[in-house]
Amino acid sequence: MAQSLVISIDAMGGDQAPLAILDGVSDALIRHPGAKVLLHGDQAKLAPLVAAHPRLAQAASVRHASEVIAMDAKPGQALRNGRQSSMWAAIAAVASGEAQVAVSAGNTGALMAISKFQLRTVEGIARPAIAALWPTTRAECVVLDVGANIECDAAELVDFAIMGAAYARVLHGFERPTVGLLNVGVEEVKGHEELKAASAILKAADLPLRYHGFVEGDDICAGTVDVVVTDGFTGNVALKSAEGAAKLIATFLRAALSRTLLARLGAFLASGAFAALRAKMDPRTSNGGVFLGLNGVVVKSHGGTDATGFSAAFDLAVEMAAHDLPQRIAVDVARLARDTEAAQPVGASTPQGAAGESEAVVR
Amino acid sequence: MAQSLVISIDAMGGDQAPLAILDGVSDALIRHPGAKVLLHGDQAKLAPLVAAHPRLAQAASVRHASEVIAMDAKPGQALRNGRQSSMWAAIAAVASGEAQVAVSAGNTGALMAISKFQLRTVEGIARPAIAALWPTTRAECVVLDVGANIECDAAELVDFAIMGAAYARVLHGFERPTVGLLNVGVEEVKGHEELKAASAILKAADLPLRYHGFVEGDDICAGTVDVVVTDGFTGNVALKSAEGAAKLIATFLRAALSRTLLARLGAFLASGAFAALRAKMDPRTSNGGVFLGLNGVVVKSHGGTDATGFSAAFDLAVEMAAHDLPQRIAVDVARLARDTEAAQPVGASTPQGAAGESEAVVR
Repeated sequence: MAQSLVISIDAMGGDQAPLAILDGVSDALIRHPGAKVLLHGDQAKLAPLVAAHPRLAQAASVRHASEVIAMDAKPGQALRNGRQSSMWAAIAAVASGEAQVAVSAGNTGALMAISKFQLRTVEGIARPAIAALWPTTRAECVVLDVGANIECDAAELVDFAIMGAAYARVLHGFERPTVGLLNVGVEEVKGHEELKAASAILKAADLPLRYHGFVEGDDICAGTVDVVVTDGFTGNVALKSAEGAAKLIATFLRAALSRTLLARLGAFLASGAFAALRAKMDPRTSNGGVFLGLNGVVVKSHGGTDATGFSAAFDLAVEMAAHDLPQRIAVDVARLARDTEAAQPVGASTPQGAAGESEAVVR
Repeated sequence: MAQSLVISIDAMGGDQAPLAILDGVSDALIRHPGAKVLLHGDQAKLAPLVAAHPRLAQAASVRHASEVIAMDAKPGQALRNGRQSSMWAAIAAVASGEAQVAVSAGNTGALMAISKFQLRTVEGIARPAIAALWPTTRAECVVLDVGANIECDAAELVDFAIMGAAYARVLHGFERPTVGLLNVGVEEVKGHEELKAASAILKAADLPLRYHGFVEGDDICAGTVDVVVTDGFTGNVALKSAEGAAKLIATFLRAALSRTLLARLGAFLASGAFAALRAKMDPRTSNGGVFLGLNGVVVKSHGGTDATGFSAAFDLAVEMAAHDLPQRIAVDVARLARDTEAAQPVGASTPQGAAGESEAVVR
């Protein structure tokens, strides 16, 4: 690596901060011995904890921030009053170029608002999105948006496809990831108007992705495509419904395996297998939503994360920082804009780019 | 039972029809020895199969229908050209009052269109909905709509709450079922405008249900409420995403338990427990979406159902037929209309009823 890797950490964000955050960073540093870490937060609280972790003491420098954004603060409120917060400082280090990536387990809405304000969106992208990783029997599936944008038009969904594909390329090394639009049926006739319009644009455009068409909810875990695109409302409900189902199955399984002596013995003998399964399904090991579409990389760890979860989010941040994700997205978006301008030369140079096209392309 | 129970069956609908349908009905008749069955479909195909099932031969009469609605037919097409179909005849028997309930494993969109055309919606209900049953650690949770209506306004969501609560009362005997609106956060500020408006109406109205407020995707399987209300797009995605997650876990579990000799031995010893778990999670045992809001009960079995699944759908149909669900819904809707008229005497007598109220009630 030519440039040394600097990770900016909001040490005060999350339910178990700062202890779980520092433990997680310390663990992650075993795997990333060359990384430098900026720890933003209360100097008085952080200094003794850092001193107690030899790896941290060597790799990290503490930057004092006097305030913490509350987990239930409204995004607008955080933006107006949060300038002295650890979250603000963590993002500022990316905006100034001092760090390549920021990680926070704090309030999602506030983190998105503060990131958007300081980093701005990539040129050609109207709204950033949050991408989550889902387990499948193949590579993890990128699902976006999972909560940043409640309602999305066709052009925004197309942007998400471009951003998700760029992420999957960085993550898995796929040259042309497959992309599906989440719908209630695979037939062309079904679904919202904006889905049909987005589908038509993706079919016509020449982008570094393979557009698969519509997919359904069960296609996510089935690994039918590498990237599933949807609005933030639907994506959030899908993610949480699936998590709820997984939790219920674990509850039923535990109950079933403790009911009879034979079942308890069987469970004991198979305990290694169960541990392997748990590791595979553990939401902590794929902990980290990535904010896509900003001029800088921000990784959002789960608010309730422990050290293991934060450590996984740190790993993801290192991977993202090693590739220039915002630059890749900017190139692909420019390519789409060029395409659509060529396809329809009249009045296509609106700031929304593809937005003006959707009506024309769809039958 | 004063009146004898008559179940109208579309014997030709579904991927495995008519064999799986007749096997399923025959199995179900063991549990419902007094029920009479009308089997609609191709006489030449059905007669020898019925003759081979002694229980069917005794309880069922075959009604010839020359056509079958294709699984991929468009709803409008089925409505225009489907008058000679087994599905049409199955619903017609409910419309005429000959049967109390119809069951079909055929094309969902066609079944909804044909049911709506022949049975009409309950007075005061603009659009019928499809309700699904989700496993939880408590009683099964009623989720609606799961596919009939892609977009819903506040008044329709309120109707769904009333319909879902009436269904939960019949199903579980709860006097005032708890109802939640599916959203991306439990805070009041989040979500679509129509969700906020529906929430305000449900808070103010005096209905035979307890309105819980907003719930999230993971609340469905957690059993937080008895009824979860959402639009058909979101409900369908949630249902299928959860099914996909459940399937993935089963795949991982099988793989983990066959990896080592010890794990295989453990799995063998615990096989009784796994069978119990499978039975609990088997989508076939809670197979059947109920169409709510029509003047008649229609149960939709999964298109790919086998005999076990269809038999479960038959059980559900018998339960619904024993209670007058459409009448219960009609009473509750009238009560809401009375309420909202009292709350806002000016111009509240539009056909949409509560729709006009949403603006006034929400802050």
